[in-house]
Amino acid sequence: MRIEKICILAIGTELSEGQIINSNAAWLSKALIESGAKECWHLTLADDREQILTGLKIASQHADMLILTGGLGPTSDDFTREVLSTWLDKPLIFDPDSWTHLENRAQLLKFQLSPSQKQQCYFPEGATIIVNPAGTAHAFLCHRQNQPIFVLPGPPSEIQKIWETDLAQRLHQYLPGKAEQKLYRWQCMGLPEADLGDKTEEALKGSLFRIGYRAHSPYVEVKVWVPAEKEAQPWLEKLETALSPWVIVRNEEDLGSHLVQACQKFKRVRLLESGSQGRFQQRLAPYLTPSAFQTPFQIETLYGAPLDQNEIFKLLEKERSDELLFLSFCQASASSWLIVLQQGQVLQQEFLSSPYPEEQVSRNLAVLIEKTLLRWSEWLSHKLEK
Amino acid sequence: MRIEKICILAIGTELSEGQIINSNAAWLSKALIESGAKECWHLTLADDREQILTGLKIASQHADMLILTGGLGPTSDDFTREVLSTWLDKPLIFDPDSWTHLENRAQLLKFQLSPSQKQQCYFPEGATIIVNPAGTAHAFLCHRQNQPIFVLPGPPSEIQKIWETDLAQRLHQYLPGKAEQKLYRWQCMGLPEADLGDKTEEALKGSLFRIGYRAHSPYVEVKVWVPAEKEAQPWLEKLETALSPWVIVRNEEDLGSHLVQACQKFKRVRLLESGSQGRFQQRLAPYLTPSAFQTPFQIETLYGAPLDQNEIFKLLEKERSDELLFLSFCQASASSWLIVLQQGQVLQQEFLSSPYPEEQVSRNLAVLIEKTLLRWSEWLSHKLEK
Repeated sequence: MRIEKICILAIGTELSEGQIINSNAAWLSKALIESGAKECWHLTLADDREQILTGLKIASQHADMLILTGGLGPTSDDFTREVLSTWLDKPLIFDPDSWTHLENRAQLLKFQLSPSQKQQCYFPEGATIIVNPAGTAHAFLCHRQNQPIFVLPGPPSEIQKIWETDLAQRLHQYLPGKAEQKLYRWQCMGLPEADLGDKTEEALKGSLFRIGYRAHSPYVEVKVWVPAEKEAQPWLEKLETALSPWVIVRNEEDLGSHLVQACQKFKRVRLLESGSQGRFQQRLAPYLTPSAFQTPFQIETLYGAPLDQNEIFKLLEKERSDELLFLSFCQASASSWLIVLQQGQVLQQEFLSSPYPEEQVSRNLAVLIEKTLLRWSEWLSHKLEK
Repeated sequence: MRIEKICILAIGTELSEGQIINSNAAWLSKALIESGAKECWHLTLADDREQILTGLKIASQHADMLILTGGLGPTSDDFTREVLSTWLDKPLIFDPDSWTHLENRAQLLKFQLSPSQKQQCYFPEGATIIVNPAGTAHAFLCHRQNQPIFVLPGPPSEIQKIWETDLAQRLHQYLPGKAEQKLYRWQCMGLPEADLGDKTEEALKGSLFRIGYRAHSPYVEVKVWVPAEKEAQPWLEKLETALSPWVIVRNEEDLGSHLVQACQKFKRVRLLESGSQGRFQQRLAPYLTPSAFQTPFQIETLYGAPLDQNEIFKLLEKERSDELLFLSFCQASASSWLIVLQQGQVLQQEFLSSPYPEEQVSRNLAVLIEKTLLRWSEWLSHKLEK
């Protein structure tokens, strides 16, 4: 059976009432699309029997396969398996192996099992149990008139572990295994979405490729889906030329990763900043894994009143020359700041400003952070090498 | 007309294919529930005419009101307004005021308007235009057989601004204005979800309150919805007593906020750490706003090899005594670290460890960060005052 449309049905009042964000739907969709799924829908509902039942009916009408997340816990508001049992007309059957799994897990993580945890060991008759190596509730697969229904626990780390150890492989029989379309992406800065759209449409006129756009300040992303069988290179080159003055990075590339890469050869790196409200940390931390970066990389964020320029230069004078130092300091104005790079005798500095008026605080912040990462990367790759 | 069920229909391939997370649905649901809505559904679909049309039909069948987000942009993949016009059987009409809005915005943000932006000025006949003070695409309200349909742009900052300047007030005619149920929350640590569930159910037996749970390591959250007309105090006190050994914070409280509050009286504060991978920054940054914290608060994260104990104590010796210093250092083991607090002559230190085995890295990290924030707050509020 060939699956094209998938509905991810997320169950949880914490989701439907907005206490938390449905990151599972995004994570699963990305993985499913990469595995060759054509279309993903997300439906999110509260912990409510009637809503879940209605949701199941809608999802099964509009999708070839269902993936349910959440509602498999040990408490009184977890009833995904009950509603499913009613809908499938299959009684819930106790699985002793699942109880053993719970006992092992309780021993490993040093907690006492509670009798109410027994409900996590019941599965609709005929269901295939899928081991959850990262949590108490096993996942399972059941069917309704040939339609596969995967039922997963709610915590993101558990879903990702189950995907890795079982689901990705198991979905092979339903999905072709890799996307039939390849997605190319360009992150551009400095030209409005509408104009980038015009340039893209013109460059790809006649190609019949699907094209998409996403404005996420300060970037506009241009996306092109290319079917596997199509010869794309001449088109992609034409588009690259049309967008080139505004392209910052392509596909999965990220400026943060570029900067961390460029820092690898230095003994010790410090980034001292005020004004980004922790965003430099947020941008760089994913790439500063112990394996990727063995030398110390220190990020210091100063919250409170901005430093004045004298203080900054005093700081520069006393810095050790064997380290690479980045500085970024907020000025009185929210739309500009000073950035510095120091390495031994080399000192680069520049005032960066945002094109937006001062009141556009978060817009200014976003553009200044990206411009700073870009300038530092450029200085590192060009200036220091001379 | 009284609205109870609301469907938030998010449109965007970047959402349905998991490139980004649907934070709008969460934000809007929270605001709607606080305004008295009973039930929120989320439905997320790709930029695809057929999918949007099907989504509109489903949503209008199962909800009293629809809120659409996304697909109002200037590019070729934005056709929310077109599909809506077809479905409502109302032609799109050009609105000259919206074009003036675009011209003003282009002038303010110094960009050139493109002719393709004209599409953002068309609205289904009879729609009420709702000004978007933060972006190019105005929102609008239309109806289908008495069912209100709000159509909002996609960027979160624009939705939030429209809510603030118009929507919250406008929804008054449909929603009672404040929740009829009050939600009480307890964040607990150190007892499994199932046991906290048993204790909660026992304490509230006979109350008929709706109860919910959410495990988000290292916390388990207990939630109780209390109808406005009910006398809840005795029940809540009973529950408080039952949960008290494990309660860390209540309702909207957060440990990060507690710690920042407790630091306000110090001249200068530094937090120097390795091992949290930037998570201390992430936990504290939201509370370190310029207005909330005037004195300098510096967070330094050291990425790379962990410091050894000698280095740590050398560091402590040379530190200035007029500042409050927090230290947190990873040891060789991922399941324990050393935390220190120094203020003048007062020095507190402790090895914290996680109850989980070493391989449970992210679990250990989460529990160590929360335990550290808790101990620092305790030291500040009790020990330093003596």
